[in-house]
Amino acid sequence: MGPDTGSGMFIGRYRIGKTMHWSKQLIPTLREVPQEAEIPSHQLMLRAGLIRKLSGGLYTFLPLGLRSLRKVERIVREEMDRAGALEILMPALQPREIWEKTGRYEVLQHVMFEMLDRQNRSMVLGPTHEEVVTSLAAGEISSYKQVPRNFYQIQTKFRDEIRPRFGLMRAKEFIMKDAYSFDMTWEDADRSYQAMYDAYVRIFERCGLRTKIVEADTGAMGGSASHEFMVLADAGEDGLVECGSCTYAANLERAEARIVPPAEEADDQAPEEVATPGAATIEQVSSFLKADPARFIKTLIYKAADKPLAVLVPGDRDVNEIKLAKVAGDAPELADDALVETVTGAPVGFAGPVGLKNCRIIADERLRGAVGRITGANRADTHLRHVSMERDVPGAEYADLVFPREGDACPRCGDGVLHEKRGIEVGHVFKLGTKYSESLKAAALDDQGKLHPLVMGCYGIGVTRTLQAVIEQSHDKNGIIWPMAIAPYSVEVMAVNVGHEESVRIAETIAAALEDAGVDVLVDDRDERPGVKFKDADLLGVPLRVSVGERSLAAGGVELKNRADGEQAVVPVEEAVGAILERVRSLM
Amino acid sequence: MGPDTGSGMFIGRYRIGKTMHWSKQLIPTLREVPQEAEIPSHQLMLRAGLIRKLSGGLYTFLPLGLRSLRKVERIVREEMDRAGALEILMPALQPREIWEKTGRYEVLQHVMFEMLDRQNRSMVLGPTHEEVVTSLAAGEISSYKQVPRNFYQIQTKFRDEIRPRFGLMRAKEFIMKDAYSFDMTWEDADRSYQAMYDAYVRIFERCGLRTKIVEADTGAMGGSASHEFMVLADAGEDGLVECGSCTYAANLERAEARIVPPAEEADDQAPEEVATPGAATIEQVSSFLKADPARFIKTLIYKAADKPLAVLVPGDRDVNEIKLAKVAGDAPELADDALVETVTGAPVGFAGPVGLKNCRIIADERLRGAVGRITGANRADTHLRHVSMERDVPGAEYADLVFPREGDACPRCGDGVLHEKRGIEVGHVFKLGTKYSESLKAAALDDQGKLHPLVMGCYGIGVTRTLQAVIEQSHDKNGIIWPMAIAPYSVEVMAVNVGHEESVRIAETIAAALEDAGVDVLVDDRDERPGVKFKDADLLGVPLRVSVGERSLAAGGVELKNRADGEQAVVPVEEAVGAILERVRSLM
Repeated sequence: MGPDTGSGMFIGRYRIGKTMHWSKQLIPTLREVPQEAEIPSHQLMLRAGLIRKLSGGLYTFLPLGLRSLRKVERIVREEMDRAGALEILMPALQPREIWEKTGRYEVLQHVMFEMLDRQNRSMVLGPTHEEVVTSLAAGEISSYKQVPRNFYQIQTKFRDEIRPRFGLMRAKEFIMKDAYSFDMTWEDADRSYQAMYDAYVRIFERCGLRTKIVEADTGAMGGSASHEFMVLADAGEDGLVECGSCTYAANLERAEARIVPPAEEADDQAPEEVATPGAATIEQVSSFLKADPARFIKTLIYKAADKPLAVLVPGDRDVNEIKLAKVAGDAPELADDALVETVTGAPVGFAGPVGLKNCRIIADERLRGAVGRITGANRADTHLRHVSMERDVPGAEYADLVFPREGDACPRCGDGVLHEKRGIEVGHVFKLGTKYSESLKAAALDDQGKLHPLVMGCYGIGVTRTLQAVIEQSHDKNGIIWPMAIAPYSVEVMAVNVGHEESVRIAETIAAALEDAGVDVLVDDRDERPGVKFKDADLLGVPLRVSVGERSLAAGGVELKNRADGEQAVVPVEEAVGAILERVRSLM
Repeated sequence: MGPDTGSGMFIGRYRIGKTMHWSKQLIPTLREVPQEAEIPSHQLMLRAGLIRKLSGGLYTFLPLGLRSLRKVERIVREEMDRAGALEILMPALQPREIWEKTGRYEVLQHVMFEMLDRQNRSMVLGPTHEEVVTSLAAGEISSYKQVPRNFYQIQTKFRDEIRPRFGLMRAKEFIMKDAYSFDMTWEDADRSYQAMYDAYVRIFERCGLRTKIVEADTGAMGGSASHEFMVLADAGEDGLVECGSCTYAANLERAEARIVPPAEEADDQAPEEVATPGAATIEQVSSFLKADPARFIKTLIYKAADKPLAVLVPGDRDVNEIKLAKVAGDAPELADDALVETVTGAPVGFAGPVGLKNCRIIADERLRGAVGRITGANRADTHLRHVSMERDVPGAEYADLVFPREGDACPRCGDGVLHEKRGIEVGHVFKLGTKYSESLKAAALDDQGKLHPLVMGCYGIGVTRTLQAVIEQSHDKNGIIWPMAIAPYSVEVMAVNVGHEESVRIAETIAAALEDAGVDVLVDDRDERPGVKFKDADLLGVPLRVSVGERSLAAGGVELKNRADGEQAVVPVEEAVGAILERVRSLM
């Protein structure tokens, strides 16, 4: 373990441990696609021997998976340190009472593992740490001289997922980087937010990830604004829209669209009942009446603050309950059948706004001025047509209530059109404001001696999820294609035939020289058929493969192959180390 | 973040992060000794701002505590890697069923946090990982070609301690390094054990800890042999004995002593009853009869395998139930009063071996050939004297049943005398054998195609406990005295008076040069009285303090002070960096 040599300086910073021979490692590659894995990244993590399942949503990191994970963590740590954040480490186990103080126990209890300790105290496993860190700040920060401060940790989180799946994407136990900023003023907090936003851009770039930054809802976290860092992927669990013309992008829950008034054909006929026997869904009625679902006024009865609420949206749109909650002023829940019948006087499936009594009505903006529409008649097996909103539903309030979709107009630039995408959320930054500092009494004196609650932000990166997202974004049919920065090894060296002494000697000499230069090297020293070794190399996805064999030596040296573009070259033995180092540097 | 300069190479390997100014860090030092802390290391961790309590047994690592922790982890990792162990990371959350397979759920359930998940499965938080790692090995290792393998992790463990205390010494959540070796044969397993033993010696040395290696009982872990690495300290929760002459040392539970036959005075009188009204304890009777407690035969009634068992030990000794269990062939429990009365025919306090019927009798070796002893008469308020073991208790079996104590003869060298000490267990290595591999079916084919259960060892280091043990062993009345290798910073630089521009400029220049050379530097840039800054420096215990002030400049330069020995020197400004680097290297 002597000092690094000069040439390895830059590379050596990225190294983990020492050169490893395959025969002494644990790299249990699999030929078959494991049954348990649905998406490519999950399949590849298992097939390349990066992780193994212990039970649903719980995985062991094998050596190669852990090496890449540590490299992601190091990038995160370097960028957080560079942004001035201070690393701490908070307990996973937490008394339930601190969650009750902020009112979040109720909101999050369904995803928190909870248990009694031997002192009969209720303990939970933290899915996030606002409560703990704000309690810490309340104890340690008391003056404007002590802020801004940003505390982060890279730590294991727990979530009692109802349906853990996709490997590390949605696991019961996972590693997060979570950071929490504390400032005296909202302006300072905005600066802290921006610093984290910028750090996140660098982190994901350095991990080799292409991310889309989208406006997002603040959800259970609370606060005034937030952005998500999304990796676009068909397997993503989050929907988002992005504008084809400008930079607008938003999580589907948060996304708006420019509302284009419906192109209505004049229809001043009075509402008319039409029998629709047995047809209760929009699909059934539209097929029965041969009318476009978009011509329907879908009427949903909710319960909000113990009162009924009728929600109207175009027949081909879905209610975004997050938007609805903001308008309704409470978290509305769909009414049960009994309430629907009480409110409408009809069985479920035939609700409509016309003549509805004692019930607040909120309609989607897209229905403003709509005429000639079809809706339920509040009578069994009956619908109404020729309904005009203005004339027939005079008491309706209007708001944006639906999810935008492919083809909607961009709310920002006006001429762009929105496209729907799926994404994997790898990072999320929130402006929290004073929600937590007020309930946990984290306040500081300003330079006038006046006490203010600290203004907070919080910032998360799913570290284990990021690792898998890289694979989801960077693989081909043969295996993983690691970005150099987080590859478990930077170079894989093999003697094609370990029975050929000269090949083995050259391979080992090259590996030792690379090691001296600070490069992470894996030596495939297995006595296996060349086909098996080459297939495994592609599966592991180490960025640079160096193979030495009778054939390459006859062709003039050793063979270098880039995993990403498949580029191959034979390089003379004596030039090999220099050529490899140059490639490693260029890919770093 | 340019490459390191040549001079910093060696030192740079040990660096964490960048130079930090006190005013931007979180170092909440405390003047007062916190009420919650009983022992020096716990008090100092709180006072120096290394940790803060969240609730009983749960602590947050603040930046300085985490920096030292990471340095301990790095030493552990380097030595484990050097010994050929492979790092993995297993889940903390585990299905209870794997614990039931090995029969350990029953043994350890009282210390395991347990909860139901949303699928209604019983989950536990792992206090150790034999079950998980052996399941992993069962799936991945199938041939002698794949062993030896040793898997380790540095990971968070949970224990539902009934009485968490002493800060990180006995916490509910803590970090362990646990390693597990798998071999084909017992001989190979011995080699794996020795490699870990040797690695542990290096690890604790590098952390600056003086440890005592003692033979220990295998306890709930099972297996054939084990050694503990103990840090001697009055606050230690483990008792141990060590020989004053040879290297023998053992945990009190495991320790033996050479049994010196009692120097008996001849006494051939027949047993004689003596009234001891109301005196039921050895203390009471010995005071009543004016006899040395050592002359008593203490008789304890146990229940083992549902049968009564009388256990006889000298009146001044305590039964070691671990030793007793080995002889009794079951885990004996003290009998309840009813059983004592049934067996002895007398109330509790008057049991004796003479005439005891239908009851197995096991006596401590130290009673072999004893004559003229006093014991209970199996009748209320009555004792017997002139008891001879051979004559009056002919059916007794003999074994070593008691804890050794100060002054006992060494069992190994014969002429040495044992001394009792208290210790903090920081490491423990076990020869496990095939207990886990058999119950979890981890087996491999040998080169003859025959299947053998893998032979295991397991090896733990309490990483967070080690950190605190260093402080317990290395502090003075003013604060911590960090060994260079795990100090949060290697050097603390301060301008004594931040109002004096020249001092500040020199301090910053020196700090920057040290930083360039790869040294971890803390700059105390606070506008505080010199007394406060010097006191805090001693409290933090950074190994080397560099102070610049009008007085030092007048005396010829900057002042260097070693925290450990208090040695001070004034060095010319232009020679300061070189002198500091030399000292840092010599202390590393």
